[in-house]
Amino acid sequence: MKYVRFRDPAGAVRRGEYEDGFVHFGNESYALEDDAIDVLPPCEPSKIVCIGRNYADHADEMGSDLPDRPLLFLKGPNAVAAHGDTVTAPAGKERIDYEAELGVVIGEQCRHVPVSDAMDVVEGYTCIDDVSNRDDQNEEQNWIRGKAFDGAAPMGPVLATPDEVPEDATVQSRVNGDLRQDGSREQLIFPIPELIAEITTYMTLEPGDVIATGTPEGVGPLEDGDEVEIEVEGVGTLEHSIRRP
Amino acid sequence: MKYVRFRDPAGAVRRGEYEDGFVHFGNESYALEDDAIDVLPPCEPSKIVCIGRNYADHADEMGSDLPDRPLLFLKGPNAVAAHGDTVTAPAGKERIDYEAELGVVIGEQCRHVPVSDAMDVVEGYTCIDDVSNRDDQNEEQNWIRGKAFDGAAPMGPVLATPDEVPEDATVQSRVNGDLRQDGSREQLIFPIPELIAEITTYMTLEPGDVIATGTPEGVGPLEDGDEVEIEVEGVGTLEHSIRRP
Repeated sequence: MKYVRFRDPAGAVRRGEYEDGFVHFGNESYALEDDAIDVLPPCEPSKIVCIGRNYADHADEMGSDLPDRPLLFLKGPNAVAAHGDTVTAPAGKERIDYEAELGVVIGEQCRHVPVSDAMDVVEGYTCIDDVSNRDDQNEEQNWIRGKAFDGAAPMGPVLATPDEVPEDATVQSRVNGDLRQDGSREQLIFPIPELIAEITTYMTLEPGDVIATGTPEGVGPLEDGDEVEIEVEGVGTLEHSIRRP
Repeated sequence: MKYVRFRDPAGAVRRGEYEDGFVHFGNESYALEDDAIDVLPPCEPSKIVCIGRNYADHADEMGSDLPDRPLLFLKGPNAVAAHGDTVTAPAGKERIDYEAELGVVIGEQCRHVPVSDAMDVVEGYTCIDDVSNRDDQNEEQNWIRGKAFDGAAPMGPVLATPDEVPEDATVQSRVNGDLRQDGSREQLIFPIPELIAEITTYMTLEPGDVIATGTPEGVGPLEDGDEVEIEVEGVGTLEHSIRRP
């Protein structure tokens, strides 16, 4: 099953079933790109737990060592943006990058989840762009200015249940239509159940919380007006644009 | 004015006026330590923005250089704990520390707030303990396991309006009654208006969000069963205990 959260023409927030470009709720159906509806983020995370350097080829391109346990960082709810949104980057920066990622949406409140049970707490998957302000990221201990600014986590539009997404699902980005990243979920150094087990050793995850599982090689800069697509096989394609003040 | 959020004997969440150890709401009054009420955190932050090394003497005791701009890090809502709670530290760690801090509670949604207007978005102040797991903090890029675990931000019990809190308010901690930290708001390297201006350059603050303004020298370890008090002059005293599994 695939779902899209949206605001209907009457202003009500709904989660409809998604199929072939259309969202169905009750007796109504809308094209995903219909101007009569506002596509919303697929969930309302209390926090987004992100993973750094979880693809060997990306760690290599960044000149970073591979971590011996997941490199964790946080984005708050202020970072959430939706399909179709324009993300305004922090002003006056040299380099703002896209990072295509598979997002894991948590389905139930959980803590101390063993690897063997971890998939039970997963509601599904979505597409997420871990938009990154390299100017500040490279200058600070904790990646707050670099990664947790408003709009730094566009996500959606689809939440797909786990059965929809193959174990070797491709994770891709395109900028203005050009393919920039082309990885696979199989390349994750720490697979999803290990991430959930490690995170919940320290913190409770809530329904709607999101784990951004890391990005494959091929990250690069965004210019004012660029159109970004993040595609995860079995999920769909997230589109957003960028404004560089 | 001083306020305490609490759950009344009927289970309703109220914010009462606080005076001399008593909380008043409607026709009812309760002693703060009355078992009939549950004292709640003074607000419900969507995020807690914390400041590292904001007192020169603490940076010195940690062997750290002074930052040339505020060192920011994040705790999520999972970190919130209340007055009277027992915080369970991550298991099997060598060193878990207290860190007494003045907490700033934000009163309105805001972005790009200039220093000159920053106090307008402050609802008031509270006491906060930036409980820190040094084992992991010293081993990770972003302080997630080290600082953002469940219960790592006990806060409260009082929210005091700015007029209650002197510019040179003392910020103290006691462990089992022994004074351990004794700083003053005057010692902040980056004062509160500068923190708000810097944070809101990058992110929107929401009503109830908290800024933890940093800790003075004298941090130290907590053992199982220790009782911590965090006192901010003009606000009051937060009490919590610690469990070390």
